[in-house]
Amino acid sequence: MSNTPRWSRRGLLAGTASTIAGATLARVAQAQSAPAAAQSRPLPPYASWKEPGQMIVHTATTIETKRSAFGTGIVTPADRLYIRNNLPAPDASIVADPDAWEVSVEGVRQPRTLTVGQLKGLGLETVAAVLQCSGNGRGYFADKPSGTKWTVGAAGCVIWSGVPVRSVVAALGGIPGDARFMTGTGGEALPAGVDPKAVMVERSVPLKAMEDALLAWEMNGEPVPLAHGGPLRLVVPGYSGVNNIKYVKRLAFGATQSDAAIQKTGYRMSPPGTKGDPSMQSVWEMDVKSWINGPSSEDGPVKAGMVQIHGVAMGATRSLRRVDVSLDGGQTWQEARFVGPDLGRFAWRQFVLPVRLQPGQYVLASRAQDTQFNWQVENTPPNGGGYLNSGWRSHALSITVA
Amino acid sequence: MSNTPRWSRRGLLAGTASTIAGATLARVAQAQSAPAAAQSRPLPPYASWKEPGQMIVHTATTIETKRSAFGTGIVTPADRLYIRNNLPAPDASIVADPDAWEVSVEGVRQPRTLTVGQLKGLGLETVAAVLQCSGNGRGYFADKPSGTKWTVGAAGCVIWSGVPVRSVVAALGGIPGDARFMTGTGGEALPAGVDPKAVMVERSVPLKAMEDALLAWEMNGEPVPLAHGGPLRLVVPGYSGVNNIKYVKRLAFGATQSDAAIQKTGYRMSPPGTKGDPSMQSVWEMDVKSWINGPSSEDGPVKAGMVQIHGVAMGATRSLRRVDVSLDGGQTWQEARFVGPDLGRFAWRQFVLPVRLQPGQYVLASRAQDTQFNWQVENTPPNGGGYLNSGWRSHALSITVA
Repeated sequence: MSNTPRWSRRGLLAGTASTIAGATLARVAQAQSAPAAAQSRPLPPYASWKEPGQMIVHTATTIETKRSAFGTGIVTPADRLYIRNNLPAPDASIVADPDAWEVSVEGVRQPRTLTVGQLKGLGLETVAAVLQCSGNGRGYFADKPSGTKWTVGAAGCVIWSGVPVRSVVAALGGIPGDARFMTGTGGEALPAGVDPKAVMVERSVPLKAMEDALLAWEMNGEPVPLAHGGPLRLVVPGYSGVNNIKYVKRLAFGATQSDAAIQKTGYRMSPPGTKGDPSMQSVWEMDVKSWINGPSSEDGPVKAGMVQIHGVAMGATRSLRRVDVSLDGGQTWQEARFVGPDLGRFAWRQFVLPVRLQPGQYVLASRAQDTQFNWQVENTPPNGGGYLNSGWRSHALSITVA
Repeated sequence: MSNTPRWSRRGLLAGTASTIAGATLARVAQAQSAPAAAQSRPLPPYASWKEPGQMIVHTATTIETKRSAFGTGIVTPADRLYIRNNLPAPDASIVADPDAWEVSVEGVRQPRTLTVGQLKGLGLETVAAVLQCSGNGRGYFADKPSGTKWTVGAAGCVIWSGVPVRSVVAALGGIPGDARFMTGTGGEALPAGVDPKAVMVERSVPLKAMEDALLAWEMNGEPVPLAHGGPLRLVVPGYSGVNNIKYVKRLAFGATQSDAAIQKTGYRMSPPGTKGDPSMQSVWEMDVKSWINGPSSEDGPVKAGMVQIHGVAMGATRSLRRVDVSLDGGQTWQEARFVGPDLGRFAWRQFVLPVRLQPGQYVLASRAQDTQFNWQVENTPPNGGGYLNSGWRSHALSITVA
């Protein structure tokens, strides 16, 4: 078996691979998010088990869930869950024996390398959490920042099982006094001939995020698939996708953030048209957000009469208080009803508003409010990377009723 | 759109055969297939998308989840969910256009045939519920009643979305005074040359069950697969599997129970060694129950040291108050901790007890108590059909620790 990264051997990815050689992270990201036509490409081999009709394949590492593919069942099934990888996935051999995967834990009193098998003895927790790409909604920014033009589908609600990071830390003697950040490093193979710091996937989050974080080996009741970071993923509930490190091979606690480009200059809330730098806010916690998933008139007009308008709403790190729905693009609002069980403050909730619709055009919008009375914003101010768009106005869904 | 989930063999397809050398492929396959003591047959075509290594195929219509295949993520993924069909599944063409499926609603003031598309306008609810075959646990009855020898794996916790039956009834003018039962009829093709009443799948439940029942078109966030009763299934939360009619084509309210054999004489709590008759209790509501899923020493001894003993517990129709775990076959008990979000009174909960185990033999048992202080029984009295076994003693899991 060859250890050569698959992206360098497969014709399908040849274009991406040649771009990666000698590129900075920024250029990799740019190449991977080349403007996607409405037409979807075939699913790449490592994600071939996804439902092709329900996904939009922008590139081999950027695969979005169709808006109409979100059901009303709260948990997003694995075969409809989006993928966004900053580097090609490692070889599938790493999920052959998940318990053998090793993660090095550093910055604790007794640093150690632990296998997944060992982690399984240290604790067990199960958390439902929204996994959402930092750039979800980028396609709705009017200033068209570069990057994949995700609409709503780079998000899903997932049930993770694993060991709480705080239990691992406790088992290793705790953290010495001055740590302020938790840093996870991904197990991707790095392209040769490039400064590792320019391309490696290594993210730091504030230490407080540790309280809710998991080292997860299970996703939706099955071993975490390779495409989603198996055998072991660092899950940081409430924090955007990039902070949830796939194939995590190192977890470190320390006083400073990683100096990898993805942390230092990447994923920063920079002014429009500019690059990030360490003085700017890192893309960490997500915001209160909601959108409507149906009914859709993509496949033809919605039938006039009684209609159940439904969508999803998330408080990111807080539970939700309410969701309002508008049929007229935000001029008037009605309170929607939450549907189904509440899976906790990191999960999303389904909501529904039953209405009788006459033939015509409607602009369906929703706005959520969390339990601290924070409303979803009307418009998210533009930023250089096109991150964390949660504005309800641009996320509205136009439908035709006949 | 395909109705067939495509996520099977997720690990195997994580890389194609061309990218994984033979030896690795074999290891992947091995890692995926839990140790099969009981040799399993191949999956039948209509269920070919299930994970072969995680299922025990008794026959083409009786497929069990391996005990070790239950994760800790609360919701049972579709590709690990058991199947028990009383008749072969209808042709897959019925799920090609789910919205076109028709159900006739009778015994209401304005009887009507409604399509799934029309039902979708009438209401929306999402419920997590344990789906459990009436005969789950039959393999543990000492008197060995005839029928599939299910152990724990003819059960799963599923998220259903659909319209509340009570909303459909309200839209059709309500039910005249004397109805006592709700009867669902399945859309299976009946074998020729046999009295239809002898083989048809038609079950009646008490009218009160209507309050929680759904006509469901979605299971775990996707259209209900054919193998699980799509395009439309009658879901009666808290009631055993047979009452949850697949491909439901008729829903009727009336003063009497169905006179189909499956209702009249089948699925009755008859004395051991005898057949059922209408004077006996029908197999309806399930009982409070729990069992331990791991760790297992099927693959070899569990490693001595810290171990997280975990399992599932259900209150059937009531929420749970507590679960106790025993390491010595019920001589002593310790209270376990619930893990993960509570999906409501019809769902199951995961529980865990962390313990330090020395080398030796252990008999892991669990017993659950619901919020009305009903304890799971130690032994379920035998009955002719081997139904509703919830006794904690026979469900214990023996392990070797080394």
